[in-house]
Amino acid sequence: MGRHFDTVCFLSDYGTADEFVGVVKAVIRDLAAHVAVIDIGHQVPRFDVRAGGLMLARAMPYLPDSVVMAIVDPGVGTDRRAIAVEVAGGAGVVLGPDNGVLAHGVAMAGGAERAVVLDRTEIHLSNDARSSATFAGRDVFAPVAAALCNGADLHDVGTPVEADGLFPGVVPLPRDVEGSEGRAIVGEVLWVDHFGNCQLNIGPDDVAEWGERLRVTAGDVVRVATRALSFAALGPGAVGLVLDANGLLALALDRRSAADELQLAAGDQVTIAVLDDESAARSTRSTPVAAPSRRER
Amino acid sequence: MGRHFDTVCFLSDYGTADEFVGVVKAVIRDLAAHVAVIDIGHQVPRFDVRAGGLMLARAMPYLPDSVVMAIVDPGVGTDRRAIAVEVAGGAGVVLGPDNGVLAHGVAMAGGAERAVVLDRTEIHLSNDARSSATFAGRDVFAPVAAALCNGADLHDVGTPVEADGLFPGVVPLPRDVEGSEGRAIVGEVLWVDHFGNCQLNIGPDDVAEWGERLRVTAGDVVRVATRALSFAALGPGAVGLVLDANGLLALALDRRSAADELQLAAGDQVTIAVLDDESAARSTRSTPVAAPSRRER
Amino acid sequence: MGRHFDTVCFLSDYGTADEFVGVVKAVIRDLAAHVAVIDIGHQVPRFDVRAGGLMLARAMPYLPDSVVMAIVDPGVGTDRRAIAVEVAGGAGVVLGPDNGVLAHGVAMAGGAERAVVLDRTEIHLSNDARSSATFAGRDVFAPVAAALCNGADLHDVGTPVEADGLFPGVVPLPRDVEGSEGRAIVGEVLWVDHFGNCQLNIGPDDVAEWGERLRVTAGDVVRVATRALSFAALGPGAVGLVLDANGLLALALDRRSAADELQLAAGDQVTIAVLDDESAARSTRSTPVAAPSRRER
Repeated sequence: MGRHFDTVCFLSDYGTADEFVGVVKAVIRDLAAHVAVIDIGHQVPRFDVRAGGLMLARAMPYLPDSVVMAIVDPGVGTDRRAIAVEVAGGAGVVLGPDNGVLAHGVAMAGGAERAVVLDRTEIHLSNDARSSATFAGRDVFAPVAAALCNGADLHDVGTPVEADGLFPGVVPLPRDVEGSEGRAIVGEVLWVDHFGNCQLNIGPDDVAEWGERLRVTAGDVVRVATRALSFAALGPGAVGLVLDANGLLALALDRRSAADELQLAAGDQVTIAVLDDESAARSTRSTPVAAPSRRER
Repeated sequence: MGRHFDTVCFLSDYGTADEFVGVVKAVIRDLAAHVAVIDIGHQVPRFDVRAGGLMLARAMPYLPDSVVMAIVDPGVGTDRRAIAVEVAGGAGVVLGPDNGVLAHGVAMAGGAERAVVLDRTEIHLSNDARSSATFAGRDVFAPVAAALCNGADLHDVGTPVEADGLFPGVVPLPRDVEGSEGRAIVGEVLWVDHFGNCQLNIGPDDVAEWGERLRVTAGDVVRVATRALSFAALGPGAVGLVLDANGLLALALDRRSAADELQLAAGDQVTIAVLDDESAARSTRSTPVAAPSRRER
Repeated sequence: MGRHFDTVCFLSDYGTADEFVGVVKAVIRDLAAHVAVIDIGHQVPRFDVRAGGLMLARAMPYLPDSVVMAIVDPGVGTDRRAIAVEVAGGAGVVLGPDNGVLAHGVAMAGGAERAVVLDRTEIHLSNDARSSATFAGRDVFAPVAAALCNGADLHDVGTPVEADGLFPGVVPLPRDVEGSEGRAIVGEVLWVDHFGNCQLNIGPDDVAEWGERLRVTAGDVVRVATRALSFAALGPGAVGLVLDANGLLALALDRRSAADELQLAAGDQVTIAVLDDESAARSTRSTPVAAPSRRER
């Protein structure tokens, strides 16, 4: 017998317009009434495995011991594998399609320990080869999560596979460049949040000694950005590089959307460079930000 | 005393912009703290009794033993009746306005057994004739659900009525036609889901021996559709008739919205016909779908 | 030791696109597994402290004994204070930023009793001065809520402050005017709900003896409005002044959006006046409403 869980954490691209999320929870309630389900989020853009995987990774350090379902599954019903991955000495089991959506979260939890393919179809709700294979959340992942919560061992719900063979998550790495204008790092927007903050794949250490004010280039827009630990510290209209809640740098403004201001979306490229006075003077801006305060300092 | 329930399943057109759903749950928590509420969905289009009723019916087979509230209630505060309907030998009680929103769900659960009108106003929160009558979810359905969870019998919360006299759900039936081009069936889009899949009121048996490839006419658009058990089996750009998770046929594409592709919305008419080679050749399409692969087979 | 709570009620402007709400719940689950979290609502417009405060006030009378978190926090990370306020003899504790978002809710619960500033950083998740200070819901409010649920006294989570010194909520008051056309009251739209109903800061007593039909002026639009206790009582196309579920008057139509019809948004000014026949005849309307039925009466 495995460990009993009393929490399921649930992430998907199901949206909330339909009953999909509710039906998954209903199945879990029916099979394991003691379990509380925590919704991590269901507004992952449709089929966007990368966005779902990054959301899982951001949430993972804060999840309680639980069975975690991450379902962004464009290949549902094909031969893509449905898997369960044990992490953190059994404190967590992560379920989902083996398409990369689990990879970042599993890595954040310390890496895969045991892993199984969810091929014990007798546990599934709809297990006839002539059945619809369009709703694995309801028919596969929910009953497996319930079984694990009820004490099933990982090997009771599937056949062991090598954890090394799981589909990797693609992590875009920033790259350092040295140009005529000095040191710079070329990164990418990982995530635009509800407030328009643009999380980059660049951490504070990557630009540790580049000063408090940096040059940011996003497409045709060049702005001077100030480093900060909060949004409000930036002041009106100023672009900031804020140390965000996941330990990465985010382009942000105070009470405004950096994504709107800088015309950025997830996946867009951003260059951060050491600021020299000349380039600062050339920076484009839609609001008067830097120049006056620079003279004062 | 009736059966005790520990789960309330909750569907409405309240949306999530406001506190309506939360206040209903707060009332239930206050009156019956042991109860877990499962949200089936709250994004039913405003006042759309049919859409709410179909959502309830799709979810119903998967709900645990529970009190089910389905509140799409444009007539709130009028003499439309608020009712509770017992189903499945008492394993479930369905609450809502008697405007048809419950009918499909009740039928899916095996039909109405006992039914009552919720006229025991002493249980309700706001029961003065001069009070606002705009929020029956909070004032009527939540306290009645809590009472049922606490062990009240159905007859403790209302006056018995004939189950036969409840407002029926309107089910659009497909019709077979025989035209110059052969056998066809004229159906209707019941539901467009978050992914753009268009569920039809046509089941697989309705077109059982019509072959794997069928002619679909939706407005001015004529396409060849392939039958499939999953979306990804269709391949890029191909329109499919997929056996969906509720056992009906749905027009679908792989990772794209069939509703966008075919310009379909809930309630629109769709004709499915036996495919002859001539009609296939005439089919309009925005992506090369059928012709090359047809020759290969 | 303080009282133990088993419910947290949670309101924010976090939206549901991201994992913010889920992560806050995950932290609470991890620290106080016995607690159920009820979402009041998370679609408060970004940074809109007034809208969040009004939502809290509307919900407050219906909340169970609980720890209530109301997080609309544009100043997160600045020296704005994070506070906890005890209400109702300890039956509730309200947490949030001290920017006014709590004020209406606290008043609705009978006023602040004890209050503390949440400065016991050893309870917080991220308590290094060099840490990101962008997600107080996760790092401050969630662990404090969990501590209170686990039995901590208010004074265990912060340093006492004068309840009188908390940031007040701004309540727009209606004003009576007496013009050439008779008595009138000038109010404001407090809230436009999901259905387009426009709640005013005007109660039924403010216009108690002004008759059943009233003149409503909203910008350039002048309409005759009928008083009602429900939406459906209004009949097609008629503008109503409905006694809403919070005891205030709301501009409403039956199954249509009053906000669309009258071009109203939260914060807009509305004048309600005693109707004289002449002004009624001059009223603008987009649908034939008043004149025929007036003659019949």
